[in-house]
Amino acid sequence: MALEITKAFIEEIEEAIERADAAYILSSLEDMYPADITTVLYELNTPQSKYVLDLLEPEVGSEILSGIDPEVRNNFLKSFTSEEIARYVNLMESDDAVDVLNEQKVQVREEVISLLDNEEKAADIIDLLHYEEDSAGGLMAKELVKVNLHWRVRQCIAEIRRQAETVEKVGGVYVVDDKDKLVGRLGLKALILAHDETPITELYDPDVISIESYKKDTEVVDVMQKYDLEAVPVVNAQGKLLGRITIDDVVDVIQEQAETTMQLMTGVTENTDE
Amino acid sequence: MALEITKAFIEEIEEAIERADAAYILSSLEDMYPADITTVLYELNTPQSKYVLDLLEPEVGSEILSGIDPEVRNNFLKSFTSEEIARYVNLMESDDAVDVLNEQKVQVREEVISLLDNEEKAADIIDLLHYEEDSAGGLMAKELVKVNLHWRVRQCIAEIRRQAETVEKVGGVYVVDDKDKLVGRLGLKALILAHDETPITELYDPDVISIESYKKDTEVVDVMQKYDLEAVPVVNAQGKLLGRITIDDVVDVIQEQAETTMQLMTGVTENTDE
Repeated sequence: MALEITKAFIEEIEEAIERADAAYILSSLEDMYPADITTVLYELNTPQSKYVLDLLEPEVGSEILSGIDPEVRNNFLKSFTSEEIARYVNLMESDDAVDVLNEQKVQVREEVISLLDNEEKAADIIDLLHYEEDSAGGLMAKELVKVNLHWRVRQCIAEIRRQAETVEKVGGVYVVDDKDKLVGRLGLKALILAHDETPITELYDPDVISIESYKKDTEVVDVMQKYDLEAVPVVNAQGKLLGRITIDDVVDVIQEQAETTMQLMTGVTENTDE
Repeated sequence: MALEITKAFIEEIEEAIERADAAYILSSLEDMYPADITTVLYELNTPQSKYVLDLLEPEVGSEILSGIDPEVRNNFLKSFTSEEIARYVNLMESDDAVDVLNEQKVQVREEVISLLDNEEKAADIIDLLHYEEDSAGGLMAKELVKVNLHWRVRQCIAEIRRQAETVEKVGGVYVVDDKDKLVGRLGLKALILAHDETPITELYDPDVISIESYKKDTEVVDVMQKYDLEAVPVVNAQGKLLGRITIDDVVDVIQEQAETTMQLMTGVTENTDE
């Protein structure tokens, strides 16, 4: 179950930061989910938060920075060097990395990109930065598992194994032709139940719903809700597979959409702070 | 891609209903997703919609009735006999079945339940009717794949095969002990990459976030958003696994929550029709 974070716990962390007791802080946070550590960081000031983040594994730190409130993050990252930002961005999924970079000044953004170790990630990020933030392209991540229509289950599983490191949640596998055009989808359940030598052509579902990269984010929400999708693949005008949007990435859009509807209904059109 | 439904198309369907041309209607709707057929039904009047629904496969009909707007559904089902409702409810996932039954008068509800062929489904539905609609228990479905902690991958896959018919989206597998207490979770990715003889104890993640059945629906949303979950298992006070809630089932709650926030912010507290 989710943890209850008490005032006493926060005070103990603050005192440990005061006396630079890294071992105490690490053992206190050891069993916590990144989202719970984020809740702790919200209670601390910027230098305290930075001290704690520096102690954590970079993988945990990058997950925290991916999930944190964008406004808080933007302020927080002002106290980071470009090298420090790059260390975390290197480990983020491409859509989160782009969100972080879009919040930075152009100079910082360029510096961070030039410092990325992971060349494939850097290329993905540069590609994603071209899309409007409120478009399907702006919401998508490049990380996904795709397999060729002419493969068999065995190759498909090898591809999942190869991609397992970079794709956090697989969900399903997209099927493309030799020109990288999206032609279908394959659920993991079907894959688990199939034999190694079964051709993908016999297994895949050609009835795959996709969305073009230029479409508005609100349209992404409508399509995902209407067809009850946990993820939707994004294609270009030629049907080439570009990326994928998962439902957790559009929850913010759903909330904004509901709020806008309410504002229109009640006649409130000025910006309101939450 | 999603289909564009034109006025001309609707008129042709209406004319075909007029002349009772079942073959024409079926061939027109043949390649459409249930969600698109729903859009067509919204354009027709009640007797016309009923005529079309009666022509479709019961599986397609039950998917349409599961996804349709609750108010529209409630009006629509008034023209159905209890036998007709039971035919569709029999094929629905348990959470959708309960939503439909909760909308009916007590007499109709009891009649429909007594008419259900699928005894396991009937038992699940009777169980789910006890939970408050705005609680975790009221949101959950009973359909899920659970495996025993002491099994191996081979048994786990056999269990998925057994359940594949009733569980539409597997997502992940829940791990329980001999007393049916939730002890962990196993992603399908891990299962695909493992060998048949690997013990579940070596594979499963004991760090599973769950929610108690009595918790409010808004708390379900908070937990799923905070920990970025696509599904959350529901347990009783003893930690026994009762069901699961998927993210698509809480999207309505997310929208209501955003609307309530807006209402509080703008001081509008009276009910508004959408």
